[in-house]
Amino acid sequence: MIRFDNDYAEGAHPQILQRLVATNEEQSPGYGMDAYSEKARASIQKAIAVEQATVHFLVGGTQTNTTVIASILRSYQGVVSASTGHIAVHETGAIEAAGHKVLPIASDDGKITAAQVKALYDAHWQDGTHEHMVQPGLVYISHPTENGTTYSKAELTALREVCQNCGLPLFLDGARLGYGLVAQDNDLSLADIATLCDVFYIGGTKMGALFGEAVVIVNPAYQPHFRYMIKQRGGLLAKGRLLGIQFDTLFEDNLYLDIAHHAVAMAMQIRQAFIDKGFALRYDSKTNQQFPILPNDLLEKLSEKYSFSIWEPYNDTHTVVRFCTSWATKQEHVDRLRADIEKLEGGNL
Amino acid sequence: MIRFDNDYAEGAHPQILQRLVATNEEQSPGYGMDAYSEKARASIQKAIAVEQATVHFLVGGTQTNTTVIASILRSYQGVVSASTGHIAVHETGAIEAAGHKVLPIASDDGKITAAQVKALYDAHWQDGTHEHMVQPGLVYISHPTENGTTYSKAELTALREVCQNCGLPLFLDGARLGYGLVAQDNDLSLADIATLCDVFYIGGTKMGALFGEAVVIVNPAYQPHFRYMIKQRGGLLAKGRLLGIQFDTLFEDNLYLDIAHHAVAMAMQIRQAFIDKGFALRYDSKTNQQFPILPNDLLEKLSEKYSFSIWEPYNDTHTVVRFCTSWATKQEHVDRLRADIEKLEGGNL
Amino acid sequence: MIRFDNDYAEGAHPQILQRLVATNEEQSPGYGMDAYSEKARASIQKAIAVEQATVHFLVGGTQTNTTVIASILRSYQGVVSASTGHIAVHETGAIEAAGHKVLPIASDDGKITAAQVKALYDAHWQDGTHEHMVQPGLVYISHPTENGTTYSKAELTALREVCQNCGLPLFLDGARLGYGLVAQDNDLSLADIATLCDVFYIGGTKMGALFGEAVVIVNPAYQPHFRYMIKQRGGLLAKGRLLGIQFDTLFEDNLYLDIAHHAVAMAMQIRQAFIDKGFALRYDSKTNQQFPILPNDLLEKLSEKYSFSIWEPYNDTHTVVRFCTSWATKQEHVDRLRADIEKLEGGNL
Amino acid sequence: MIRFDNDYAEGAHPQILQRLVATNEEQSPGYGMDAYSEKARASIQKAIAVEQATVHFLVGGTQTNTTVIASILRSYQGVVSASTGHIAVHETGAIEAAGHKVLPIASDDGKITAAQVKALYDAHWQDGTHEHMVQPGLVYISHPTENGTTYSKAELTALREVCQNCGLPLFLDGARLGYGLVAQDNDLSLADIATLCDVFYIGGTKMGALFGEAVVIVNPAYQPHFRYMIKQRGGLLAKGRLLGIQFDTLFEDNLYLDIAHHAVAMAMQIRQAFIDKGFALRYDSKTNQQFPILPNDLLEKLSEKYSFSIWEPYNDTHTVVRFCTSWATKQEHVDRLRADIEKLEGGNL
Repeated sequence: MIRFDNDYAEGAHPQILQRLVATNEEQSPGYGMDAYSEKARASIQKAIAVEQATVHFLVGGTQTNTTVIASILRSYQGVVSASTGHIAVHETGAIEAAGHKVLPIASDDGKITAAQVKALYDAHWQDGTHEHMVQPGLVYISHPTENGTTYSKAELTALREVCQNCGLPLFLDGARLGYGLVAQDNDLSLADIATLCDVFYIGGTKMGALFGEAVVIVNPAYQPHFRYMIKQRGGLLAKGRLLGIQFDTLFEDNLYLDIAHHAVAMAMQIRQAFIDKGFALRYDSKTNQQFPILPNDLLEKLSEKYSFSIWEPYNDTHTVVRFCTSWATKQEHVDRLRADIEKLEGGNL
Repeated sequence: MIRFDNDYAEGAHPQILQRLVATNEEQSPGYGMDAYSEKARASIQKAIAVEQATVHFLVGGTQTNTTVIASILRSYQGVVSASTGHIAVHETGAIEAAGHKVLPIASDDGKITAAQVKALYDAHWQDGTHEHMVQPGLVYISHPTENGTTYSKAELTALREVCQNCGLPLFLDGARLGYGLVAQDNDLSLADIATLCDVFYIGGTKMGALFGEAVVIVNPAYQPHFRYMIKQRGGLLAKGRLLGIQFDTLFEDNLYLDIAHHAVAMAMQIRQAFIDKGFALRYDSKTNQQFPILPNDLLEKLSEKYSFSIWEPYNDTHTVVRFCTSWATKQEHVDRLRADIEKLEGGNL
Repeated sequence: MIRFDNDYAEGAHPQILQRLVATNEEQSPGYGMDAYSEKARASIQKAIAVEQATVHFLVGGTQTNTTVIASILRSYQGVVSASTGHIAVHETGAIEAAGHKVLPIASDDGKITAAQVKALYDAHWQDGTHEHMVQPGLVYISHPTENGTTYSKAELTALREVCQNCGLPLFLDGARLGYGLVAQDNDLSLADIATLCDVFYIGGTKMGALFGEAVVIVNPAYQPHFRYMIKQRGGLLAKGRLLGIQFDTLFEDNLYLDIAHHAVAMAMQIRQAFIDKGFALRYDSKTNQQFPILPNDLLEKLSEKYSFSIWEPYNDTHTVVRFCTSWATKQEHVDRLRADIEKLEGGNL
Repeated sequence: MIRFDNDYAEGAHPQILQRLVATNEEQSPGYGMDAYSEKARASIQKAIAVEQATVHFLVGGTQTNTTVIASILRSYQGVVSASTGHIAVHETGAIEAAGHKVLPIASDDGKITAAQVKALYDAHWQDGTHEHMVQPGLVYISHPTENGTTYSKAELTALREVCQNCGLPLFLDGARLGYGLVAQDNDLSLADIATLCDVFYIGGTKMGALFGEAVVIVNPAYQPHFRYMIKQRGGLLAKGRLLGIQFDTLFEDNLYLDIAHHAVAMAMQIRQAFIDKGFALRYDSKTNQQFPILPNDLLEKLSEKYSFSIWEPYNDTHTVVRFCTSWATKQEHVDRLRADIEKLEGGNL
């Protein structure tokens, strides 16, 4: 069985593991006060070209989203999100458990537009009973989205402008950020993202680390006391060095982008194979997740040799599935998959 | 200006006020342990014909909904509700502030069906990643709904059956319960409701009381320690007698239903006046709320003499509005309104 | 049985009830937007001599404390309180249910000192692991305290100074505020309190209203969006006029202080009777609550004719009890009690 | 600088790291559904000799405590803990952020007794106003405690009996469990602990793992849906295999106890050195934490070569400090420390 079902099926990129082994016996202070964490923070500040941004390392995505969102919102506020957003769907109500409603914006491809945010904001404030409704207090986007799509610089800039006009901070969930940065149609740099967002995070777990997410708080208004929040929300790792070492390694010698380049190259080959064979793709993803629509019988056939995610039914006879790549995806596995796709019959909807 | 904008524009039904005045100097224990509360609880137990049900008095609707829902759900569970439900829309995120997601079911008229609940339940449990999603833990309905519509006995029985099969308790928000009980097409008695729901509440605020809602916990599983919940959620009135006296009065000599009869009779006259003049009604309400669709110019004209709620835009030229009646609605005011409706031109959509 | 067990045993002061009756048929907008609420807000702004303060009416004390505290604190902050404070002991964990720890300061008489607050603040910030502990974010005091004691102007000023130096807002719970304002050794005016606190509330429930508390937000930093908080926490009464009318009446013609004067005069007579007979008082209260220490056999004897609160065991043979007075306490009842105290034997500890 | 300040200064025990390296390229399902997690769960079930116990792996201690406690308590309940307990002091209010009060029991050495729990329970239920107070719903103990002390089998059995009689589940925080199991005066086996507790956790972070805690739910009443809780509270690691591999290694060939034996042996040498030189110990710890009381000038002198924790001031001239050992503590470092202690003058209080 060859796994394409997610981007966290293996351990960590070997360079990361080597660093963990090499430093294992060193003694260091706990809770992120060690030299490696310090160095990793500095590397990220440099990579995003915003010196005054603060950087914090947390363990996983749900924890990171909850901690950031709970640190920004007031009790009566909610967070605006695509209806498909991770916080809206796949975090077992972590945001609500922290006391806040997720205010969904209908989305087909995982993205939301500046116009949609403006419309939601206006609808709230123009309603005579707005005090009886949850006040929008923050905009959450993921980039790439859960559907592999990405924002262009123009789109993100438009979102930023609307957010600023509405007094809404913008938070970008970058669980798979690297894959977006190297997508073929991408025009957003890390520095752009840092300029356009109030807070964002650079994902590690799905980008080759054992685990870990780096929160970047660009807007000074949201910087104070964030370590209290991390501790309270269970994300302050005792051996914080583990996060420091991993992100230090990822941001040395371009490793983060190298990992992304490899994964996206593999994904593009898989994408092309499906397209060549006439299969439709549910989302137009140029990142490491691909969503072909497969007839149910072919799906079963492919399942014999490969594992991939069942995304959702497309109709009675077809299903949307997801193939994922990562730093660990082997060219030979992709080759084998491509050969097997080539042999499939009946792709057209 | 004659107000038809809600059912809480006046104080209380005179009989209630008289009782409050008559008993004012009496001394009684606090927090609902007084004789009036005791008597009112017994009256309600008798009216619903379920002796072992426990009855508690709270101050208002949002508080009541939050207290009941938070008392039943576990941390990882959410409450299923029509997308239009009061808890989903108009309680400033009180349910989320108590830690729980509202799981919306699309509804046009405020009602949800047994089939919809079953589908939501199945969708959750059949999803391979269900542990990453909020588990449905309770079904909330309002009756009459926010749109004036009501459930039939068959519909409520079907909901009950699905809930029971799915292990989901059923909670009915009866903020306007009386108006439903007297609606012309109603076939549900208080006893039916007590049989079909695990918990429900009998609204007072919108039914002629100064304030107050009577929670009835029929299912013994949800009875223990509910007074702790009321106190914690700020609903345990020091002078609990005020609630006892009011509900005691409402459940004496049929006052509760008399109030409802009057209000609904007034509403039916208003409804007929709009129908006669060719205006469409947004919802088919036989209760105390009526939702005509008015051309915007007529709406402005009517606003000069009457206040009513702007419900939502219907299209570019028409608006849905709400006319509400109550115990206090005067026949002469309704007559005046009917005469003015009669004079309107251009009702047809 | 004559009740001295609390200050909410009767209904409301007759003038309040008369006003409710007189205005009952009037139609008014809901949720505190009516003319009576407007007028009451203005009266209070005038009485405290701070025009820019905002005033809100809520239903009860637990609700008020939770709403105010949750509106001010950030997720990682707690509220400093006397260990005997209402929020620390008698609100069924409402503050914790809103996500915040109550940080207790040891207190024997219900009061805390500026030095204690400073010490707690310093202890927190000087601890190397302070990010692992709840950050003090607000100071809560009650005045009069749960033990009937009061702060002097010097004491409150000192608290205020420490709070300001520490960046801690000061919130005063005035559930029984009036009784403090008329205490014989009181040197604090309403205007002083408004100057020295960031937020405080003027209690109605225990001061002659049917129910209701008036929150005064003096510090503009805590004013925005408070109505969202009230709605979310279940305190936004549909018939908000009921609160408006009550506070309008209380602040007309000095009624609020008249009520307080009467109750405190009654309490002082009871106090003197116990003192004259040689009974010790647990707390030195000059307000409407008196805490004599009674031998258990005398306690039982008195219980035959009077109800009062068992406060706490004093030792194996003696018990602290509480006698409460209010607007409704009758001179003849006090006379009877005094006569019966006079007949008691064995008061000395 | 040689670090004795905590038991998480280094990475992981080499055997753990080797296993992570050896398995790094393997593909496995996420979120704890992998074969290593399965195997580790089985090993722990065997080690505790309770087959029907469920085992879950989480990342860190605060997260684990919060998740367990929030999964058991109802909204109106609190958790009983020593006043010195980790959840009471050092988790930035995580329990309160989950909505629950920590009900402290005064403790000097970190332990609580069965009699104290009974007294707290009785005080609650015998209070006439108990519905106004947080209901005790769970008892939390740590073993070894934050002060290095441990419960004897008799003490734990007594606690268990009281808990059972009071209907209070017992939760044991075993962040440093191994050190307790090998303490010279220990008479509790893992199987005993599993028999006496409803839920407990076997710490990994402070016992040689990179990170990770294994929650054991012995009482079937608390088993359902726990994975929802883990996900919601941010503890469901995507690469759950990392936890599985680590605990699988720890429970193979006795590694867990070997690590504990080494650390405790080192700690006993340090302890003896202080005793021999006449220094008093603040707590009578037979585990890996030692708490000598040092004159402040000697403390400074020792700080030049060693890092250790400042625990708390003892008096104006003396300070309690903490020396910690772990799997990684080197005999030569301990020897050097002992030699330096030997040279200290003025130990006696």
